[in-house]
Amino acid sequence: MLAEIITIGDEILIGQIVDTNSAFIAQKLNAIGIRVKQISSVSDDKQHILNALFEAHQRADIILITGGLGPTKDDITKKTLAEYFSVGLVENQEALQNVENIFKRLRGPSTQLLDVNKQQALVPENCEVILNANGTAPGMWFNYLGKIYMSMPGVPHEMMYMMEDSVIPKLKATFKLPIIIHKTILTVGEGESYLAEKIADIEDSLPSYIKLAYLPKLGQVRLRLSGYGEDEVSLKKEIELFAGKIVERVGRSVVAEEDIALEKAILNYMAEKELTLSTAESCTGGYIAHLITQHPGSSKVFFGGAVSYSYELKESILGVKNETLWQYGAVSRETVTEMVEGALLNFKSDYAIAVTGIAGPDGGTPEKPVGTVWIGVANSEKTIAKKFQFGNKRLQNIERTAIAALNMLHLLLEEFKN
Amino acid sequence: MLAEIITIGDEILIGQIVDTNSAFIAQKLNAIGIRVKQISSVSDDKQHILNALFEAHQRADIILITGGLGPTKDDITKKTLAEYFSVGLVENQEALQNVENIFKRLRGPSTQLLDVNKQQALVPENCEVILNANGTAPGMWFNYLGKIYMSMPGVPHEMMYMMEDSVIPKLKATFKLPIIIHKTILTVGEGESYLAEKIADIEDSLPSYIKLAYLPKLGQVRLRLSGYGEDEVSLKKEIELFAGKIVERVGRSVVAEEDIALEKAILNYMAEKELTLSTAESCTGGYIAHLITQHPGSSKVFFGGAVSYSYELKESILGVKNETLWQYGAVSRETVTEMVEGALLNFKSDYAIAVTGIAGPDGGTPEKPVGTVWIGVANSEKTIAKKFQFGNKRLQNIERTAIAALNMLHLLLEEFKN
Repeated sequence: MLAEIITIGDEILIGQIVDTNSAFIAQKLNAIGIRVKQISSVSDDKQHILNALFEAHQRADIILITGGLGPTKDDITKKTLAEYFSVGLVENQEALQNVENIFKRLRGPSTQLLDVNKQQALVPENCEVILNANGTAPGMWFNYLGKIYMSMPGVPHEMMYMMEDSVIPKLKATFKLPIIIHKTILTVGEGESYLAEKIADIEDSLPSYIKLAYLPKLGQVRLRLSGYGEDEVSLKKEIELFAGKIVERVGRSVVAEEDIALEKAILNYMAEKELTLSTAESCTGGYIAHLITQHPGSSKVFFGGAVSYSYELKESILGVKNETLWQYGAVSRETVTEMVEGALLNFKSDYAIAVTGIAGPDGGTPEKPVGTVWIGVANSEKTIAKKFQFGNKRLQNIERTAIAALNMLHLLLEEFKN
Repeated sequence: MLAEIITIGDEILIGQIVDTNSAFIAQKLNAIGIRVKQISSVSDDKQHILNALFEAHQRADIILITGGLGPTKDDITKKTLAEYFSVGLVENQEALQNVENIFKRLRGPSTQLLDVNKQQALVPENCEVILNANGTAPGMWFNYLGKIYMSMPGVPHEMMYMMEDSVIPKLKATFKLPIIIHKTILTVGEGESYLAEKIADIEDSLPSYIKLAYLPKLGQVRLRLSGYGEDEVSLKKEIELFAGKIVERVGRSVVAEEDIALEKAILNYMAEKELTLSTAESCTGGYIAHLITQHPGSSKVFFGGAVSYSYELKESILGVKNETLWQYGAVSRETVTEMVEGALLNFKSDYAIAVTGIAGPDGGTPEKPVGTVWIGVANSEKTIAKKFQFGNKRLQNIERTAIAALNMLHLLLEEFKN
């Protein structure tokens, strides 16, 4: 069963908004065993939309469309769908009632609908209206030449509720769907090609209905097994078996056996073990703390930390000695060691991370060029300090430093696992 | 001049990643007067990629492709391009040298390349290699039947640098593009419709070749004037004239007259006035410090700060009184006032920002529901504390708090301008 997603709107094509709808829709479809063949973003242009619908019809069984359902002139999806299906537009009473309800809720019970509002209830006459609980543009379900077309609003939260509450249940009721199971293994610290070589024989032994994908991102590689089949239980078992082999082979680089962020995997582990964490950041400037605190529940593990950009703050908050800074410099083994141990002591956490480096583009010297970073991790028994040489792009250095620091913390936690 | 973007990768089609590359590419193309006709995301499947290339060729003059250039088996873009152009693959010396340099930098000078690494230097023989300064997959530029094809890696930062450093300059050199001049005015704190009303007459007076767009994003609205024409000098002058009128009318909400981030505008102003800043963050968890320190040169202005998630750190680093925390709670006017004044005092900066709130999803109470945030800004003469009630989405609350805090800082700086 193949689906295709068409997102309509000039704002996508000029890069004003990132199309997050497609990823959401794709996730939901995949979870019920519908593969997405293609995602196309097209402009608010009749001929272009017609072409996209026609092309999608050749490739897919289910065509999901978002956008172009607003009340303004440039929104032409509805009219274009009517033309595509060679039908007229009719006023739908259920949709009109919904528009009325929404306006009365927002503007008071005596509100009169304007013509432009009423037009929201016009739909192609061959459609089944799907109620939009969060907006005035109705969803529209079409069954045309044996294929399903579903038009949804482009406003993300309206589309999301419609997808979850109506479209997914309706698709499940309409089609007998195959089973797809994904399993992700998050690794950190090793490159894609190193991993590929290490597990080459396992990959070669995969049956044709289980695929392995490598998804690299900044020092991390996600290994994703995807299985397609009929029998959920046996497919799941088989995928777990191969996942187990890969995890065993890859060893300490494995951080999680699910599709989560690196820092979230660490947080989960530390929360489970009731361990606490603090940070002392110079060159990452709060980015590590931000990565951690973006996750709900992080306050159980994370006490907080210092962003010590200046010498003074390294001394006053972290207790780095003035002579250490002047003798060895802010970017040195000695300073990062005092930073990480200062964080442990002053912030009273079980574990601490410290980073100090030259993020760039300025501030480099011949001995310590831009991209030189010292990272320290510590608990009460052990401190590890390590030097890295990253590139000359500031944002990238910040991100890579954060990932490297989290990886060092992961390895230290592994060492003290028992 | 029309372009089309093709993003290749199963991870997009299963919704594992949101395709942010397309929006970035579309923005960069639009800025030089190239319109994007369609964005298509297709799977790592040979026939599907071939079809997408063929279809794009019918519609566009420039086809930009990202993804599928990794060293693993599922990455087939290169082979497929070679087949599409009916050419073979050859080893490119420049690309090979780049792969070697990267491996030696990462793993030491004695590193030997594996075969799988060397394969990264294989390219279709009709391509011009575009150096990838940030990764091993080379960019590939093709001139085929009068149309340009450009294949880039899918890793966002690799693609971004390649786009900015090489592809955009090369496109500008290859095509005679129309003249497009953009001028952006960054405003903060006022809504889109309020601004639209305030400048309605100026907007109405714009000539047909100058368009005004409202680009709202999280408490900020960018007003972008875009002029299309032949004579760069007079067009620029005219746009500056209208921009001047808008800036005068909008007044204190204007933060910058260029397309930069809010915090960068503040940094620029503070650097010019030799003012310094520190932060004390609870619910934003380092995000404000990160926003600031992602910009080169921020260390001139920013001393650092505290991420004080726990009560203890609010006391020990910021000097918030224990009785204040227990009597009024961590999320209160009293606590945020002591936090911001503590930051000023302890971190010895001219200005300080403090935030404390309930980011959610847990931790809300009937009196202080999720989304309740107190923000303080201060200099030695004045402290302002203000309460906000945001929504119930954690990440959004973090972002909105940061923007609101920066806006308060902007207004305090305005107040002390002379």
